[in-house]
Amino acid sequence: MAVRTKTVSGLRPADLDELRELAAQLRADSIRSSSSAGSGHPSSSLSAADLLAVLISRHLRYDWAHPDNPGNDHLIFSKGHASPLLYSVFKATGAISDEELLNGYRRFGSRLQGHPTPEIPWVDVATGSLGQGLPIAVGIALAGRYLDKLPYHVWALCGDSEMAEGSIWEALDKARHYRLRNLTAIVDVNRLGQRGPTELEWDLDAYQRRVEAFGCEAICVDGHDLEQIDAALLRARGAEAPTVVLARTVKGRGVPEIEDQNGFHGKPLKPDVAERALAALGGAREIVVAGTPPDPTTPHSPDGGGQIRLPHYEPGAKVATRKAYGDALLAVGARGSVVALDGEVSDSTHAEEFAKTYPDRFFEMFISEQQMVSAAVGLQVRGYRPFVSTFAAFLSRAYDFIRMAAISRANLALCGSHAGVEIGADGPSQMGLEDLASIRAVHGSTVLYPCDAVSCAALVAAMADREGISYLRTTRGTYPVLYGNDEQFPIGGSKQLRGGDRDRVALIGAGVTVHNCLAAADALAAEGADVRVIDLYSVKPVDRDALVAAVRATGGRLVVVEDHYPEGGLGSAVLEALADLGEPLHLTHLAVRDLPTSGTSTELMDAAGIGVDAILTAARRLIAAPA
Amino acid sequence: MAVRTKTVSGLRPADLDELRELAAQLRADSIRSSSSAGSGHPSSSLSAADLLAVLISRHLRYDWAHPDNPGNDHLIFSKGHASPLLYSVFKATGAISDEELLNGYRRFGSRLQGHPTPEIPWVDVATGSLGQGLPIAVGIALAGRYLDKLPYHVWALCGDSEMAEGSIWEALDKARHYRLRNLTAIVDVNRLGQRGPTELEWDLDAYQRRVEAFGCEAICVDGHDLEQIDAALLRARGAEAPTVVLARTVKGRGVPEIEDQNGFHGKPLKPDVAERALAALGGAREIVVAGTPPDPTTPHSPDGGGQIRLPHYEPGAKVATRKAYGDALLAVGARGSVVALDGEVSDSTHAEEFAKTYPDRFFEMFISEQQMVSAAVGLQVRGYRPFVSTFAAFLSRAYDFIRMAAISRANLALCGSHAGVEIGADGPSQMGLEDLASIRAVHGSTVLYPCDAVSCAALVAAMADREGISYLRTTRGTYPVLYGNDEQFPIGGSKQLRGGDRDRVALIGAGVTVHNCLAAADALAAEGADVRVIDLYSVKPVDRDALVAAVRATGGRLVVVEDHYPEGGLGSAVLEALADLGEPLHLTHLAVRDLPTSGTSTELMDAAGIGVDAILTAARRLIAAPA
Repeated sequence: MAVRTKTVSGLRPADLDELRELAAQLRADSIRSSSSAGSGHPSSSLSAADLLAVLISRHLRYDWAHPDNPGNDHLIFSKGHASPLLYSVFKATGAISDEELLNGYRRFGSRLQGHPTPEIPWVDVATGSLGQGLPIAVGIALAGRYLDKLPYHVWALCGDSEMAEGSIWEALDKARHYRLRNLTAIVDVNRLGQRGPTELEWDLDAYQRRVEAFGCEAICVDGHDLEQIDAALLRARGAEAPTVVLARTVKGRGVPEIEDQNGFHGKPLKPDVAERALAALGGAREIVVAGTPPDPTTPHSPDGGGQIRLPHYEPGAKVATRKAYGDALLAVGARGSVVALDGEVSDSTHAEEFAKTYPDRFFEMFISEQQMVSAAVGLQVRGYRPFVSTFAAFLSRAYDFIRMAAISRANLALCGSHAGVEIGADGPSQMGLEDLASIRAVHGSTVLYPCDAVSCAALVAAMADREGISYLRTTRGTYPVLYGNDEQFPIGGSKQLRGGDRDRVALIGAGVTVHNCLAAADALAAEGADVRVIDLYSVKPVDRDALVAAVRATGGRLVVVEDHYPEGGLGSAVLEALADLGEPLHLTHLAVRDLPTSGTSTELMDAAGIGVDAILTAARRLIAAPA
Repeated sequence: MAVRTKTVSGLRPADLDELRELAAQLRADSIRSSSSAGSGHPSSSLSAADLLAVLISRHLRYDWAHPDNPGNDHLIFSKGHASPLLYSVFKATGAISDEELLNGYRRFGSRLQGHPTPEIPWVDVATGSLGQGLPIAVGIALAGRYLDKLPYHVWALCGDSEMAEGSIWEALDKARHYRLRNLTAIVDVNRLGQRGPTELEWDLDAYQRRVEAFGCEAICVDGHDLEQIDAALLRARGAEAPTVVLARTVKGRGVPEIEDQNGFHGKPLKPDVAERALAALGGAREIVVAGTPPDPTTPHSPDGGGQIRLPHYEPGAKVATRKAYGDALLAVGARGSVVALDGEVSDSTHAEEFAKTYPDRFFEMFISEQQMVSAAVGLQVRGYRPFVSTFAAFLSRAYDFIRMAAISRANLALCGSHAGVEIGADGPSQMGLEDLASIRAVHGSTVLYPCDAVSCAALVAAMADREGISYLRTTRGTYPVLYGNDEQFPIGGSKQLRGGDRDRVALIGAGVTVHNCLAAADALAAEGADVRVIDLYSVKPVDRDALVAAVRATGGRLVVVEDHYPEGGLGSAVLEALADLGEPLHLTHLAVRDLPTSGTSTELMDAAGIGVDAILTAARRLIAAPA
């Protein structure tokens, strides 16, 4: 085992006594809270109690009365299951009462949930899906170093099990790349995961080699030696590189009956064990740590001003919506709060226009979509408005991070380009065909899919003010501009592009299929059929009124066409909106049912049955059918 | 730059001449194919041509006439965009004709798609989403070392950009952990990504440190020096550890006008550049490489026999479906072809029962869900039947890998435990609430959600024979066994648990909500109302006939209840099935609409409006409404 530290701690004997008392309180409270709740992770909290005692007493600069103090350090529990410890820290700083800790933890209606969420003012982001806290901390550190330019430090407590997640290494790689010396990961190497030993157990040397190979500074300590911890955290704060404190700890430390033993993960202590442990720890205490507030700083918040002048497009000109995204992103960049991130494809997504004009607010995340989304979540913690772009298909790489961002109630704009079979020759690996379904299902999300450059630009502007996760789907190819530049595109709206009171059928599309619907409608009009065409650019929330009107006008004859697999996308959005209407529906759903291949856009849309001919056939069949 | 190799190659001058000719052919064909298609990635192919020339001539042991030869090495293009090179390799081995290469590449109807897929017999899996080929190669190597016990070697060609994906490091970590000396990654370090330099450019030392820190053997070479390459591949095959050949290469090598220049990624050469380049390379050739077939091996295929004896359960006994999954997985383990993988939570998913009985066929993947799914994809390449389990919420970490597995047409069983708010106190980070939507949208997927132990066990057995991606959703808590042990549960079926010809309303649930529906139905029956209850255990494919019958019996009065967010899940499955029915629908959709918190199962289901009371209210309202 490698335990070494170079900097000497300045702890006096009295300090040590205080720290020991505080650590005992954190342990006792971790046990008391989880025992009172009847669930939780005391053993995973006990291993890190000494680390936190030293951190909050002597290194974390935090104004507990003012969690919105812009100079505050940030503390992220990447190992979110150690919530008993985190909440015990909150009690020890006076932020919450002992009563709330004991009666709230894991109870319905309490903010002290099983895993931390930002319902708690001292919590920046939700954690609990392992390997996410550190990547998000990277985003906060990016904001601190490059945007806020404030001396706050970002501390992330990691578990050793989560070091097996690739996202941790994406995070350390980006920490190195962006020279985030304001970032420290503290890894609680307690050797035991949920069901047994971790891969590397107590091989701190192996961790150290990995951390150093990824360009960060490793500091190995005995995680129960208060002086070593103190020296390590001092050195971490002053280091010239991102630091990783590798702390050898004992799971269950302080409760000899479970120390370093398998089988005690995620379980409250048995009552008799808890009783003995609390007695040995000296029972409940009410120590309140003064801690260190940050140096006074001028009030700080990102500049949300700046007038957005959206690009104008010539009606009929052929413009790709991905290009319009780039143009509009550049326009919303007039607001100093807007930042952009891309996964090494900014020449395809067109985020590069923003990158060229606002290089200080653009973060190249290379091919690491998980880290890209995490960094964005971290940036929005500091009040920035991140726009994140890559191919729609590759956003799926970060799906767990998007899911968790919703629990963090993050304000985040995502753009997925190259949606659907429309992309053509590159083939199915590059086609976003599940994105409408998967992102619609994210809590509180907004899903937008414009068909032309004008509506795309307007929706990008709307995303800059939208709360929650908003997602824009763009198309690779160029298509005609359909709308005048003054047209409004409210989220939740739609546009009726053809039709009137006597429509026999409604063709409903979004994005590229709107153009196919228009071509089909023109052919049907030439046959004398009255046809409605709806551009359902707002997939979530969806324009129920327009859909109900279409049902009533046409006797329920709808053709919904989408460049997406059949489940959960545009068709489902329409059906969900009409579920309780109580009127007969004859809805033909055209979607991508077979596994696509390579080909031209037209070949692939035709093969998938979402091209003009398929729409014509479906519409004619509905028109011919009896009501 | 670090270029060094220890082993000496045995190449004679004549060998070198042949290899140079072959490399020139691979380059020429990479240019010819992409130019003829008008798209593709020639520059990314040119950098790796020398590597592949040496590999296929002297190291890859492959019987090109018999891609199903069990002794064949495996070659995975993790950088799938270098498909011009891969297909040029196929021509050079005589596997495809020059005509197919030129007229097929990226064309509609051809198997030579923009990125490789297993429609081509010499391709094991689809690639094109970066950072996935190497993790899958780990799975094939696991099969080779631990199950097949055959001497084939697994070679993965990686790009340098994809080394930024965390999944690559999950892969190398597991390669080390499982001591996969039969695995070699060849990294084409050509310094340039899509839109500019990679993070590490030509810093081979940095790559080497990382690779070695992750416990693999690094071999640095000049990727255009045939002797160095030959020596490196020889050493790789004989090494005692997994190897990573780090090859310093030049993007566009062989076409001086684009060599090592930005701006030529993913673009065919301009016609005049192509013409000059082909002339300099000596034009088209028809070299066919003999290569080396594998040593003769006995025909080999995993043992798919073994009788499955499913567990029996006492009617009314309270059993968690996750426990039934574990029991049934153990039962299907009687087939020697069944393997299981888990993400360090096998005591929660209950995969541990399998692990204890069949330790040789269980692979602990620790907390690395991406690698877990990839390893499973690799194992099924060799004919095994992987069952993969973790919390439903955490399968979202591997969503891009599941998406790609569908393009690989992989046969793969996934189990997501701890679904929905039902899990209680752990809170939303641990609740799978998007999984039905996201996995339903995966091409060709099957989605199953049993409500009791008997149906769960039966569906696990069905998954063992199911093609494509099948997903089983299990519940944390215990609920009564509803079915007799002899009951059949065909995929695509459903069960009517209450009701008859005079039903006024149908309550439709799956999983835990079936129990809530039954309780509500009993209360309604006590009020004298005839109520149908449907257990829609097969979410995809869904039992349309049963739904149509329910609509017709009740005048379209349906209550659909799911422990999932409202979009894309059970409700959508029902609505999609009824879209074209043409009968009025009064469907009340009960789902989790607010962000959940911690609490008991009952508190959280009630708060979400999916508990018994909410069902009762909805049903009474529908019954009271005019038809």
